[in-house]
Amino acid sequence: MSEYRALRQRYSLLELCRTPDLATEVTLQPVNRIDVDAAILFSDLLLPLEPMGIRFDFIKGEGPAIENPIQDAGDIARLRRFEPRESLSHVLDAIRQVKQALDGRVPLIGFAGAPFTLASYAIEGGHSNNFAKTKSLMYGAPDAWHRLCELMSDLVADYLAAQIDAGVDAVQVFDSWVGQLNARDYREFILPHSRRIFDALTPYDVPKIHFGVGTGAILPDIREAGGDVIGADWRVPLDEAWDRIGHDRAIQGNLDPTLLLGPIDRLLDAADDVLARVGGRPGHIFNLGHGILPMTSLEHVQLLAEHVHRRTTQ
Amino acid sequence: MSEYRALRQRYSLLELCRTPDLATEVTLQPVNRIDVDAAILFSDLLLPLEPMGIRFDFIKGEGPAIENPIQDAGDIARLRRFEPRESLSHVLDAIRQVKQALDGRVPLIGFAGAPFTLASYAIEGGHSNNFAKTKSLMYGAPDAWHRLCELMSDLVADYLAAQIDAGVDAVQVFDSWVGQLNARDYREFILPHSRRIFDALTPYDVPKIHFGVGTGAILPDIREAGGDVIGADWRVPLDEAWDRIGHDRAIQGNLDPTLLLGPIDRLLDAADDVLARVGGRPGHIFNLGHGILPMTSLEHVQLLAEHVHRRTTQ
Repeated sequence: MSEYRALRQRYSLLELCRTPDLATEVTLQPVNRIDVDAAILFSDLLLPLEPMGIRFDFIKGEGPAIENPIQDAGDIARLRRFEPRESLSHVLDAIRQVKQALDGRVPLIGFAGAPFTLASYAIEGGHSNNFAKTKSLMYGAPDAWHRLCELMSDLVADYLAAQIDAGVDAVQVFDSWVGQLNARDYREFILPHSRRIFDALTPYDVPKIHFGVGTGAILPDIREAGGDVIGADWRVPLDEAWDRIGHDRAIQGNLDPTLLLGPIDRLLDAADDVLARVGGRPGHIFNLGHGILPMTSLEHVQLLAEHVHRRTTQ
Repeated sequence: MSEYRALRQRYSLLELCRTPDLATEVTLQPVNRIDVDAAILFSDLLLPLEPMGIRFDFIKGEGPAIENPIQDAGDIARLRRFEPRESLSHVLDAIRQVKQALDGRVPLIGFAGAPFTLASYAIEGGHSNNFAKTKSLMYGAPDAWHRLCELMSDLVADYLAAQIDAGVDAVQVFDSWVGQLNARDYREFILPHSRRIFDALTPYDVPKIHFGVGTGAILPDIREAGGDVIGADWRVPLDEAWDRIGHDRAIQGNLDPTLLLGPIDRLLDAADDVLARVGGRPGHIFNLGHGILPMTSLEHVQLLAEHVHRRTTQ
């Protein structure tokens, strides 16, 4: 969106995240231009790392760069527990401002990263193709790994509770990269920690979304870890994914975001395929299977949102 | 392996690939140090790009970098058809030298990239996380996409036929990144081209292996495209993967290569899990689910190979 790019000319990604007025402005930009059913808070998964003692920045064209990545059990022992209501109060301020500005037009979704994804950034030092350092630590120092994930899941649960108290209407737990693991490793190294987050949020009566990419093989395990809504990316047909998750859970997904880069007819045809697989059953949130790509045209997104609304209100 | 690193001090990756004496030496290194059942030719997936007119090099720490990536239908129209027996004769010379040096000790596996993977490097200009440019061209210019894949599959089929004539005992078709696609896109954009390769190789009586990563959702489609042996990465349990492929095909896999970076007991335990899922049925090739990682210790690989042999000859 041009209005977002204009802001990014003047402010860094972290300045936008850390300044409630700016985070509010960016959160509202898509709501004002696209016929969406919810706003999602503009923020970044990595924000909780800094108050833990892990410093990072975003390098243009390369993504996140961690200054002092976790290398061993000693680094994990030195991490700090913190109070999200203090250290990340700017996020909560942004939530309150967005809620006021939205004035009930659409609900607001808050979010946080889940243990595998947060830990992988902290250990790899940035994006990774093979998660070799993360898995090395996980396999080689399981006690330290579990201590790291316990700390992260406690903090993430506190952070999401604080977001709910500040006013978000739903929360999303992003375990974006957990599809790197098979069920055997997921159940040993991740499931107890993700469950810890969802268990801690049980008293909060808002929908909880559990999201990951490339998770076709572990959808039943992700569902077991928790969440009222389970995300599915585009690799698995939506009906098959839903059968594997169980129809007592809602499902979110699952259009390939790269379809937005192609011609309209193919985009809408693929959206129709998703909706045909839903077959009119309640409990489906139409969404992309992963984040929107920077080169996506606003017009395509607008047309997609209108198309899905037209098809689902017929 | 230290002997490989010593060679890399003196020669670039492409020099090793293009010099038959050196490619032979590197191919034999693991055979001489690890109790493996086959040698795999030392080569690179990208070699066929250059005689097509796509220039590339390998940048230290970053992987392949294409000088003139494909951007549109015009670039595809300018690609050259070539005769692998001439332009890639150095690979065929290496095969003949390796076969002579092996003297029947173990069979030799040749390989080539498959259309999606080759095209994605040519279009993205290197590694990609989201394959946005590749899919953009695929969705937006399907005719040009199919022309590109037809050319590539013809060349790959010729190249593999030439490798078989030069002496390889089996061929592997690497569609490493095709797990980015769902079945709908795979069937429209890839399956006809991959099938073209396997169909062309039908007269050659050697086993053909069809490999990809993250392909859990499209294993039946990959099987339909062709291959006597279908590769499965570590995300899907081997017995489930085999059920989905069909037991009239052999299966290759499926240990997570990062397990080699962890402690021995966990590595061997995971190998036992794979073997338990095979359940003694014939038609399983024990292998990693993806390439070996550079930081892997030789000792771990040696112990793994010995362990699998001990377990499977009991």
